[in-house]
Amino acid sequence: MAHRTYDTVSFLSDFGNQDEFVGVVKSVIRSIAPAATVVDLTHEIAAHDTRAGALALARAVPYVASGVVLAVVDPGVGSDRRAVAIEVAGGEGVFVGPDNGLMAAAVALTGGAERCVELSNPEYHLDAAGGTFAGRDIFGSVTGHLCLGVDLEEFGERIDPVTLIPGMLPISREEDGAIVAEVLWIDRYGNVQLNVDGDELDSLGEPVSITFRDQQRVVRRATAYATVKPGDVGIVIDAYGLASLCADRSSAAEALKMRSGDTVTLRATDS
Amino acid sequence: MAHRTYDTVSFLSDFGNQDEFVGVVKSVIRSIAPAATVVDLTHEIAAHDTRAGALALARAVPYVASGVVLAVVDPGVGSDRRAVAIEVAGGEGVFVGPDNGLMAAAVALTGGAERCVELSNPEYHLDAAGGTFAGRDIFGSVTGHLCLGVDLEEFGERIDPVTLIPGMLPISREEDGAIVAEVLWIDRYGNVQLNVDGDELDSLGEPVSITFRDQQRVVRRATAYATVKPGDVGIVIDAYGLASLCADRSSAAEALKMRSGDTVTLRATDS
Amino acid sequence: MAHRTYDTVSFLSDFGNQDEFVGVVKSVIRSIAPAATVVDLTHEIAAHDTRAGALALARAVPYVASGVVLAVVDPGVGSDRRAVAIEVAGGEGVFVGPDNGLMAAAVALTGGAERCVELSNPEYHLDAAGGTFAGRDIFGSVTGHLCLGVDLEEFGERIDPVTLIPGMLPISREEDGAIVAEVLWIDRYGNVQLNVDGDELDSLGEPVSITFRDQQRVVRRATAYATVKPGDVGIVIDAYGLASLCADRSSAAEALKMRSGDTVTLRATDS
Repeated sequence: MAHRTYDTVSFLSDFGNQDEFVGVVKSVIRSIAPAATVVDLTHEIAAHDTRAGALALARAVPYVASGVVLAVVDPGVGSDRRAVAIEVAGGEGVFVGPDNGLMAAAVALTGGAERCVELSNPEYHLDAAGGTFAGRDIFGSVTGHLCLGVDLEEFGERIDPVTLIPGMLPISREEDGAIVAEVLWIDRYGNVQLNVDGDELDSLGEPVSITFRDQQRVVRRATAYATVKPGDVGIVIDAYGLASLCADRSSAAEALKMRSGDTVTLRATDS
Repeated sequence: MAHRTYDTVSFLSDFGNQDEFVGVVKSVIRSIAPAATVVDLTHEIAAHDTRAGALALARAVPYVASGVVLAVVDPGVGSDRRAVAIEVAGGEGVFVGPDNGLMAAAVALTGGAERCVELSNPEYHLDAAGGTFAGRDIFGSVTGHLCLGVDLEEFGERIDPVTLIPGMLPISREEDGAIVAEVLWIDRYGNVQLNVDGDELDSLGEPVSITFRDQQRVVRRATAYATVKPGDVGIVIDAYGLASLCADRSSAAEALKMRSGDTVTLRATDS
Repeated sequence: MAHRTYDTVSFLSDFGNQDEFVGVVKSVIRSIAPAATVVDLTHEIAAHDTRAGALALARAVPYVASGVVLAVVDPGVGSDRRAVAIEVAGGEGVFVGPDNGLMAAAVALTGGAERCVELSNPEYHLDAAGGTFAGRDIFGSVTGHLCLGVDLEEFGERIDPVTLIPGMLPISREEDGAIVAEVLWIDRYGNVQLNVDGDELDSLGEPVSITFRDQQRVVRRATAYATVKPGDVGIVIDAYGLASLCADRSSAAEALKMRSGDTVTLRATDS
């Protein structure tokens, strides 16, 4: 029986662009499945930062083309963490990567894990002296064969999706009418994305008071970065539907000295 | 009537390689137009630096393949700056991006704008909570549909090319027999490109005296970086036909402490 | 007679991702040979660092797909260093780049140079004002034509492979029962790869004493980064079969203040 083939691989990792890691994984895929196209999501996730990788993957996954999603942020490479493939959406997509929570949120966004296997069949791995580069020897190689139409269950034994390591996306909470939020992401422009959605932000009215560390500040709603007054920090609903602190052509994160993971409390100014 | 399709997208932005912005835009294009290939020109234009983006695009455009040129350095995203598509060369190419001067020089180099539209038809945009990521929701989506053969005028109303924001490429000027020039670009090797062409440089003879800030220096013509003496700074006609200050395996920009936008005056040494 | 065509170009350079150099070379290839796919190995080799480029290319080449390998780290661009194409493996691959030792180790790993030519035929070069961007005007252009099936000998006169500049990969040596090694590579994770293979490392037993600068340290063998104790430095056989100093989720290079090219002496602890 012929199995479904895939012609797009969406690839995220913490391999960086400095070394040739990404190029080698893509070479492995190309050698096995020359008809597949690799779309690089990003490879500059901070080394070993599975939280940042999981968030980036979740932001990207609503937009990726059908096919394989290859995700490698894998501090446990070569240890006893499992290497897995997770089929979603009736086979429209397959996630390939380490079972360490990196892919959990993205998988959930596509409807949840359906068939899952542990990548334990060495027939589909590359031989290598040491086990430190699973991106090349396991994940890249399996991805190529998936593209060619090898069935998921050829790669190893079925595992129960409930045994997959869950993701831990931080949820904001209400406390005395305030929203206690967390900085999810500082992007290259210095926008500060919070885990606060549009409805929550709307509920606080305008402007909004934010408290972080020992500072307090009042920020106005903006509809575009360019509408924030020079020198000011504003708050927009960003392209992901979340509240983001921002500035016009400068970095809000720098102005506020905020970092990913920081706590920010939002309050109505009339409270 | 079938319209022209495109199979190459040449993509320049200030999105950086750190975040997944570039990957998401490419995913959007891939999802809409799987047969199109995206060639990344660069995504490391400094954030919001439309001048640097315009210069890089102008340097690249004589070499890009026929097709769509997608250019996004867009500090005014979501504000009232227009999103546009500009057809050039009888339809051999279409530029897609913000109307902020970024594409003007490159468009001129291809023969000038022919049909232009404002990208105002929401049918070809992605729905999104906030309007902060036009690269994904407008430019990427429109690019995909252009590749598929959707006619330019489907994307919005025609606009007059003369209403497009012009580029402002700095022109050198003569002053008392000297050439007052500007640093256009410092490349990764530290070469310092000036807005002085080969004929102008030739007119000064050899060697050439350069003045910048309160310093003066005599530089010799070189035909290759490696022919500049160790520790010296030379001047070559670079691969764009412009005069570049350079050094052998080291950074002329660092040696001279020059930055993009600096003024440099060139004189004949016998004057 | 029809000649062999190629549909994959594996591309390594020191062009960086900051400027549009890489994108322009890929545009040139795309314009000439639209059916070819370019796989970027890396472009972040330090500027002019042919040693680092040669090592990265050697690490990657066992995995690249059949086709053209385009390698440009070329401090001598425009000078009298030769531009060459080197056929390997009965025509399964062709290396294109400067004759400066950059490609020597990788060529050897594929079985050695077979037919070689100097790229002296200007018919296959792009016209340009200055000769500073051979990646675009010579190497990129020739690569495109190679993909189309132009025979190697069309690009210039045959040269004898023995006249190619050799690579200089450092070899470790034995000295009084110790192995005097060199740091080949510090990767983005801070792993420190040594020119010591698995058998050599095994011969020293466990743990191993390492000496560098005026320091001495005892390191334990590990099978995976994650098995190194927090705060410790371990030594693994890496995915290239070489000994690598490493740490768990932190940089061994930083902990040891080691850099590429440093000397490290390894001894048995019972000696």
